[in-house]
Amino acid sequence: MTAPTLSEGITLKINDSFARQRMMATLQARLDVIETGRIVIVAPILDATHQQHGFAHAAVTFALGDSAAGYAALSVMGPGDEVMTAEMKINLLAPAAGERLEATGHVIKAGKRLVIVGATVEAISGDTRRDVAVLQGTMVPVSG
Amino acid sequence: MTAPTLSEGITLKINDSFARQRMMATLQARLDVIETGRIVIVAPILDATHQQHGFAHAAVTFALGDSAAGYAALSVMGPGDEVMTAEMKINLLAPAAGERLEATGHVIKAGKRLVIVGATVEAISGDTRRDVAVLQGTMVPVSG
Amino acid sequence: MTAPTLSEGITLKINDSFARQRMMATLQARLDVIETGRIVIVAPILDATHQQHGFAHAAVTFALGDSAAGYAALSVMGPGDEVMTAEMKINLLAPAAGERLEATGHVIKAGKRLVIVGATVEAISGDTRRDVAVLQGTMVPVSG
Amino acid sequence: MTAPTLSEGITLKINDSFARQRMMATLQARLDVIETGRIVIVAPILDATHQQHGFAHAAVTFALGDSAAGYAALSVMGPGDEVMTAEMKINLLAPAAGERLEATGHVIKAGKRLVIVGATVEAISGDTRRDVAVLQGTMVPVSG
Repeated sequence: MTAPTLSEGITLKINDSFARQRMMATLQARLDVIETGRIVIVAPILDATHQQHGFAHAAVTFALGDSAAGYAALSVMGPGDEVMTAEMKINLLAPAAGERLEATGHVIKAGKRLVIVGATVEAISGDTRRDVAVLQGTMVPVSG
Repeated sequence: MTAPTLSEGITLKINDSFARQRMMATLQARLDVIETGRIVIVAPILDATHQQHGFAHAAVTFALGDSAAGYAALSVMGPGDEVMTAEMKINLLAPAAGERLEATGHVIKAGKRLVIVGATVEAISGDTRRDVAVLQGTMVPVSG
Repeated sequence: MTAPTLSEGITLKINDSFARQRMMATLQARLDVIETGRIVIVAPILDATHQQHGFAHAAVTFALGDSAAGYAALSVMGPGDEVMTAEMKINLLAPAAGERLEATGHVIKAGKRLVIVGATVEAISGDTRRDVAVLQGTMVPVSG
Repeated sequence: MTAPTLSEGITLKINDSFARQRMMATLQARLDVIETGRIVIVAPILDATHQQHGFAHAAVTFALGDSAAGYAALSVMGPGDEVMTAEMKINLLAPAAGERLEATGHVIKAGKRLVIVGATVEAISGDTRRDVAVLQGTMVPVSG
């Protein structure tokens, strides 16, 4: 895990918030990269979260992309802030088939009242990576 | 469960598809209403799917709304069709707090190549209902 | 024009703001209904705003739907507030062919910091109405 | 104008389609770059398309971003295809103030039935550039 320009306090806050998300544990997701404005979350594709064709359910792809985007927003906010998703748009590009999903969130514009974010989600099988979704949305700061 | 204008074949197909979605079982979700162009799915708010503030994770709200919208699309399609989400936009209106979530999906426009759908998600506590999300998106038919 | 529950001050503010939107004059658009949480804007389909197939350009449909939604938000806000679009999603349902377009905006949730809105746009030819678009988005209050 | 990897036929088709869009002429927009999967459209910020605060109306930003994204999709499709917007999401990042707007459209995923696209729109004043919007959406091929 690399966090070159990120203060220890913000890194701790993101790890602590992530650990309190029961949904992330249910998905067996973990934080892989925490940088200023860039977060990577990875999770295995589980039988328990399949849709009817045996791929990861769109809600899993959404969960990972939305969370990566949300923590990317948190990484550029003040130490006392928390963040909630106001709205999120997802375009699904391909079935989420493979061993695991990797979601990379980034900040498009950090405003005082709204933080505009994006994310991409890839499915990984051995050495093969395939884009499965792109997300674009809005995070709002909330008092922690 | 009421399905006044829906053929038995389509009702069976929707129930069967839902039963094969492992994600729906993980969320303890069930189909509550199956009508032509209108589907209701309910699920308890579980500890296992909380976000960091103790509310249902946005991904749960998304999962239920997206699925209700998808099955609404399936209810107006031919017996051999399956459906996948091409894109979905969610606006979160309030924290998903309460005992259970109820998602109602509906069809906005049923085209040959694209089915435009919407959904609302409510949180229910005792006799109180509160809108927690609205969704708008596109489903595409796929060969089953 | 009817405004049964809307104060004269808000009605004047909406009319005044609309009159200052040069884009609305360029589109020959006019406010047809101003009610609390519901606004209707109509505009002819002009040669000057066609796309390459001779229908109204998606940007015209967007302009009318976005404006109807924005004024619906303004109708539920305080007298000193102005409103700007933070984000908007449009699904196009059918080509915008006909004599005129009619956009109806409504408020989904009026919060202090965000107002969630929706709109539908219809194309009208003689006695025939056809849905051409649905919109869902977020307005933010700004100081006037 | 550069089109290194693009066939002359596709370049002509894009220029021809653009020329038939009356809306683009009304906005005084012109094609600045035509490459495979990447299109740039520029337009002055006109008095005639202002919103109520004197900035370019969101519909102008939408028009340019949506068109750049649509022509980016067209640049990767077959010679006989045309393209229409199925859905588009826009996040507005800053007021569209300045001398002109520049929209850059790109292809995220080119499928047979759906082409997923994105666009960014910048406002330019002298030597200063400012991001004013990001768009993400879906184009569908139609018979020309």
